[in-house]
Amino acid sequence: MIEDKNQKKTALSELGEFGLIEHLTTNFSIKNSSTILGIGDDAAVLDFKGKSVVVSTDLLVEGVHFDLSYMPLKHLGYKAVIVNLSDIYAMNARATQVTVSIAVSNRFGLEALEALYDGIHTAAKVYGVDVIGGDTTSSTTGLTISITAIGEINASDVVKRSEAKPNDLLVVSGDIGAAYLGLQVLEREKEVFKVNPNNQPDLDAYTYIIERQLKPEARKDIVQLLKDLDVKPTSMIDISDGLSSEIIHLCKQSNVGCDLYEDKIPLDPQVISTCEEFNLDSTTIALSGGEDYELLMTISQDDYPKIKANPNLTVIGYMTDVSSGIHLVTRGDEKIPLTAQGWNSLNQG
Amino acid sequence: MIEDKNQKKTALSELGEFGLIEHLTTNFSIKNSSTILGIGDDAAVLDFKGKSVVVSTDLLVEGVHFDLSYMPLKHLGYKAVIVNLSDIYAMNARATQVTVSIAVSNRFGLEALEALYDGIHTAAKVYGVDVIGGDTTSSTTGLTISITAIGEINASDVVKRSEAKPNDLLVVSGDIGAAYLGLQVLEREKEVFKVNPNNQPDLDAYTYIIERQLKPEARKDIVQLLKDLDVKPTSMIDISDGLSSEIIHLCKQSNVGCDLYEDKIPLDPQVISTCEEFNLDSTTIALSGGEDYELLMTISQDDYPKIKANPNLTVIGYMTDVSSGIHLVTRGDEKIPLTAQGWNSLNQG
Repeated sequence: MIEDKNQKKTALSELGEFGLIEHLTTNFSIKNSSTILGIGDDAAVLDFKGKSVVVSTDLLVEGVHFDLSYMPLKHLGYKAVIVNLSDIYAMNARATQVTVSIAVSNRFGLEALEALYDGIHTAAKVYGVDVIGGDTTSSTTGLTISITAIGEINASDVVKRSEAKPNDLLVVSGDIGAAYLGLQVLEREKEVFKVNPNNQPDLDAYTYIIERQLKPEARKDIVQLLKDLDVKPTSMIDISDGLSSEIIHLCKQSNVGCDLYEDKIPLDPQVISTCEEFNLDSTTIALSGGEDYELLMTISQDDYPKIKANPNLTVIGYMTDVSSGIHLVTRGDEKIPLTAQGWNSLNQG
Repeated sequence: MIEDKNQKKTALSELGEFGLIEHLTTNFSIKNSSTILGIGDDAAVLDFKGKSVVVSTDLLVEGVHFDLSYMPLKHLGYKAVIVNLSDIYAMNARATQVTVSIAVSNRFGLEALEALYDGIHTAAKVYGVDVIGGDTTSSTTGLTISITAIGEINASDVVKRSEAKPNDLLVVSGDIGAAYLGLQVLEREKEVFKVNPNNQPDLDAYTYIIERQLKPEARKDIVQLLKDLDVKPTSMIDISDGLSSEIIHLCKQSNVGCDLYEDKIPLDPQVISTCEEFNLDSTTIALSGGEDYELLMTISQDDYPKIKANPNLTVIGYMTDVSSGIHLVTRGDEKIPLTAQGWNSLNQG
């Protein structure tokens, strides 16, 4: 939590823009055969040899998407890559390349950018993607990171948001709500730190939920698992804004309804205990929390036998005719209409 | 020059993020057969059927790359697309898609974003590219635009920066220096406006150079022209930072030297007359000005007969052995070492 004020700081102007990019990207070796030409020319050149190409882009802005007072720069670099790869996996594709553009104010020195790129490099290595280009520029205030992720897929394997059918099962990977709760713990500690900078926080009870916030992972493994199980989802989306918001996306784009069962939503024990401590309703957190980067998908009932024994996948509901609407079926067997509450709206509350 | 303070302003929060993206992108129809799935899913899907894919990315930051006091938002949107397409053309490729991400503070209303997207849409239409994705988010201050451009090319047609050979001719498209001078005129008018807001500027003598600054074009036509002339350059780069900086890039990456002839540098008459008025040396402006988005290339001497009569292409020097160094040969037949002065360093002067 405590920022070291005596960190070494090399002014970026000492290197110049070209020197800076060269310095930050020398470690990036090429791993994918589709990467023909990486950093160092006007553009990168890729060759996918008969595969379709998948492209997604995201912009992360300091003060909006992250707070550097509890997000170390290395973690931020890692997370910035992860949120983009997650979109590629949500198409059922293999992520292969990213471009990274960064705008920084003169508040940041070379060591800060090195830490950021260290995280980017680590994520690229763990997920087997090549960093093929980028732009590093100054900003008047703060830090902005823009990443474009590229993937490959056989055209027939693409899973869109728009092809869920009534009676399909609604399935989620992993567990949800933890990333948002981790943020609540970090924000509480930040307030404590402001009052008493010598306080040493004891975060042992929150290790899982804090890691979900600071070092999320993208579910590359689930795309592989679905392949191994021979299951092609009828629709899929990644959970970045919260379960209810993503369910509504799938329903609207597929023109179907949905019944979601409260008692089926997978929650980690730390989510349940921390919700009790914070006096929060765990279902509300799971529905609206966001940033879990799990995959939400619909699968045909015919595929149920293939997934039912798998600990990574949980059936949480089923799709209905569009006229039935979108509902949460509570533990008390009540049907409540689901509304889109992303984590943004929660944060304002 | 005068900003209308009574413009209608619809708060972005009225639409929400998803409503906003939908509103801004409804006009974007798909024109390229390689675009299989555009905006509206986790990622776009492209299929290049045996072609190589070219990718480039740029970040434009308010207060660093543009000043909204003389850059209308529509022009800014147009220019943001152009600077990215220029990188694709510099690879000798055909530009096919762009993704657009924007971060805006609450200073900007819906009408401002509509104007920006109007410019993006116009550029996409003029250059025949599809807008396939993007992200719209809030920022704490100012406007940041991140664009990734994608193009296609046969692998054997790729022109890199690194394959220029001694004795190759150094060739530039169009004329240079105008965009930087246009900026000087606009900055002068801004100062005049601060002192006397009722002053109506007479900019008739500067129409060409102001247009080069506010509404630059990318040289898609030159890529086609080279194809028609059956000339494949040995190396190519676009002029974004200034002629001398780009020459040094080609020389370093190709491991060659260069003699550039001062009297061959193509200048528009307005550049010459405005340089006289501002008491600036036109060669310095041409070497260091930047933002012209012309193409700088090297071609084999064998191809000279194919280009010599073409008014769009000017031979300005030739490449030498690396041991000869990189020089400007002046009108007075002096040899001066060329140094990398991008337009950034000029702006600071």
